[in-house]
Amino acid sequence: MSATLGTTPDWEAMWGDLAPVGRASSGGYLRQPFTAAEREARAWFLQECARRDLAVEEDGFGNVVAWWRPDSCRPDQKAVLTGSHLDSVVQGGAFDGPLGVVSALAALDELRERGVEPVRALGIAVFSEEEGSRFPVACLGSRLAAGVLAWDAARELRDRDGVPYADLVPGPGHGSDLLAEVGVFVELHVEQGRDLVHREAAVGVAEGIWPHGRYRFDLTGRADHAGATAMADRRDPMTTYAHAVLAAQEAARVAGQRATFGRVQVAPNGTNAIPSAVTAWLDARAATTDLLEELVAAVRGRTADQAGRDGTGLEVTAESVTPAVAFDPVLAQRLARHLGRRRPGPQAEPLPVVPTAAGHDAGVLSTAGVPTSMVFVRNPTGVSHAPDEHAGTADCLAGVSALADTLELLLAPDAPTPDPSDPETQVSP
Amino acid sequence: MSATLGTTPDWEAMWGDLAPVGRASSGGYLRQPFTAAEREARAWFLQECARRDLAVEEDGFGNVVAWWRPDSCRPDQKAVLTGSHLDSVVQGGAFDGPLGVVSALAALDELRERGVEPVRALGIAVFSEEEGSRFPVACLGSRLAAGVLAWDAARELRDRDGVPYADLVPGPGHGSDLLAEVGVFVELHVEQGRDLVHREAAVGVAEGIWPHGRYRFDLTGRADHAGATAMADRRDPMTTYAHAVLAAQEAARVAGQRATFGRVQVAPNGTNAIPSAVTAWLDARAATTDLLEELVAAVRGRTADQAGRDGTGLEVTAESVTPAVAFDPVLAQRLARHLGRRRPGPQAEPLPVVPTAAGHDAGVLSTAGVPTSMVFVRNPTGVSHAPDEHAGTADCLAGVSALADTLELLLAPDAPTPDPSDPETQVSP
Repeated sequence: MSATLGTTPDWEAMWGDLAPVGRASSGGYLRQPFTAAEREARAWFLQECARRDLAVEEDGFGNVVAWWRPDSCRPDQKAVLTGSHLDSVVQGGAFDGPLGVVSALAALDELRERGVEPVRALGIAVFSEEEGSRFPVACLGSRLAAGVLAWDAARELRDRDGVPYADLVPGPGHGSDLLAEVGVFVELHVEQGRDLVHREAAVGVAEGIWPHGRYRFDLTGRADHAGATAMADRRDPMTTYAHAVLAAQEAARVAGQRATFGRVQVAPNGTNAIPSAVTAWLDARAATTDLLEELVAAVRGRTADQAGRDGTGLEVTAESVTPAVAFDPVLAQRLARHLGRRRPGPQAEPLPVVPTAAGHDAGVLSTAGVPTSMVFVRNPTGVSHAPDEHAGTADCLAGVSALADTLELLLAPDAPTPDPSDPETQVSP
Repeated sequence: MSATLGTTPDWEAMWGDLAPVGRASSGGYLRQPFTAAEREARAWFLQECARRDLAVEEDGFGNVVAWWRPDSCRPDQKAVLTGSHLDSVVQGGAFDGPLGVVSALAALDELRERGVEPVRALGIAVFSEEEGSRFPVACLGSRLAAGVLAWDAARELRDRDGVPYADLVPGPGHGSDLLAEVGVFVELHVEQGRDLVHREAAVGVAEGIWPHGRYRFDLTGRADHAGATAMADRRDPMTTYAHAVLAAQEAARVAGQRATFGRVQVAPNGTNAIPSAVTAWLDARAATTDLLEELVAAVRGRTADQAGRDGTGLEVTAESVTPAVAFDPVLAQRLARHLGRRRPGPQAEPLPVVPTAAGHDAGVLSTAGVPTSMVFVRNPTGVSHAPDEHAGTADCLAGVSALADTLELLLAPDAPTPDPSDPETQVSP
């Protein structure tokens, strides 16, 4: 094994190899699922797995897991899973997803260098279509793998060009059940926000994920001539849409939540034509499910009122709603203390435990009953889903060490994976 | 000549032949210039010209004129031009453009049936890219033919897919100078508005066209994660855009003018990403040039103020601005009286003379110094640039008669075409 290990590239070399894949001239990434760029990123991952003699398994939904299963593993022990995703939002950044995959490979190398002899198998996962940048449901691969989304619902999903999801993946019954033997999942991710900046920590542990959802607003009006139609005679859905944008902004700002219209389609979208229809997507997030429902109801209500004044029609469809995720609290505290003790320097403070409003495959697995934790790496600007998304190399390497420490703990005989039915008794130090 | 005439289809038959060309399943029309549908519409026109033994000439900009030049024409007399266009806005209606072309052919048939022996040639024009639905300048064909737009400016225009205009037309020096010998232009068009409804007239005469323009608003912000970015930390150009839409609406409504954002492009246009850029097009129209400038300045100013509050950038580019058009006033009054006297029934009231806020090739030719008039046909709903655009058959046939009466007047020896330098003396009585 060490002969193979000697030839593996380190974190920085891997990062440099992956960085050009799918990068546009703008600096942003276009790694939409099942495109040439995403396939190239997957091919890079499979090559790195081959270098490390990992056994690769795929399922019928585009997900892949590479297994380290040395002879020290005990057959009665459930596996430890880490990893993240390689797809990006349209014009996204380099870190969201790939950081967790590259760091997982580097952490595996570190475990091997340390001479760790795991009693459990370690899997490195790459989940498919995490961002929902092509199909209207985020975390599509992990939802299907975890059984929280039914194939019959997913197969009919269509991308913007009308291509059905079922045309791109073989579906259930093809490949492996990747999560069947998983006892715990840990995902490392760049922070999307600045909590770690404020706490002056390179690395932190996730507390949970805000509930969030995507809601399609279908606004209909009456197409007409932009020059010849008096303002009072119009039924202009663009006017109603403008009010929806401002309603979302105001409702979220007042309540300390998040509401965004980042995507809109206009028909016929001509300069001299009043639109017949405006379709827009509201991305809404709040600290609790009740607050999320209140937020969406406020935006919907104000838009409906305006539609009444504008003579336009409104239909709101919840395309995907993800409930709140509270990651295994005992595991989070355990990791925060353990990683805090292993930080360089005299202090033994636990790492910060912080919430996030961003969705993750970790949230899906947690919801599906897999004990789950996340390790965040500091993001100096907080910017994400954009070309400027960034994390410093020193912080990324601290992340690799923290992930290796986490995995070493979870792979050891005396740190059994937590049991979600009674975490207190299982993860106590 | 009468043998050929006997075989020509009447207005209703021609209308029925042309109606299916480029009609989408929505009922709207997709006759963008240089597409298969527009070519098919042109082929239909050329076939109708061939039936009528008309001599067809094309220029280097996609425009075509079919000439009726019988032996009675005198070589020292400038020609009379009528016609309109066959292209449509995206998802436009059946009447805007085609009504003027079909009615011109039917009016020619009526003149021949009446035994009119013109002393001037009569041309039926089909101008190219009137709507500006593909390239960012409306009336592109007539502007180039009339010399009010330079080829060097036009050749670089690109459609939404980046195709340069110069790839689609041969350019200057190819084909004929269609307007060289034209002394007067009359365009029949469906009314875009309801002035004729209020005046209970099937047909009216145009007074002029409001000045109008297209202004591109380039709003730039900072792409970021829609879930993880606090509302206060955003630079969201969609917010600024929403304020621009409302500013346009309010400014136009208060002043009795027209301002529309009907087209918008968002980057990256992802549900969970705050946009990095929003590009939107303002279509603005007002009764005078000063009022138009005030209107655009108001929208621009309020948007710039909001951009300052949102931390976004704003650039406004005037893509095309068309000054006010006052059609030849003496010709308009002359036609209104003449057509009023020829209306069926006892009344001899002149036809209404009404303004419009819609641009036309007639406006371009008028600006270029060609004495010009327009005949409008009543539009019961006023709807235009939309599938519901409509005019009743009886009104359309009244339009054909009015156009035939107009052309008979202008083709006669005692009704010389007006001289724009001194219209009073030329068009009397």
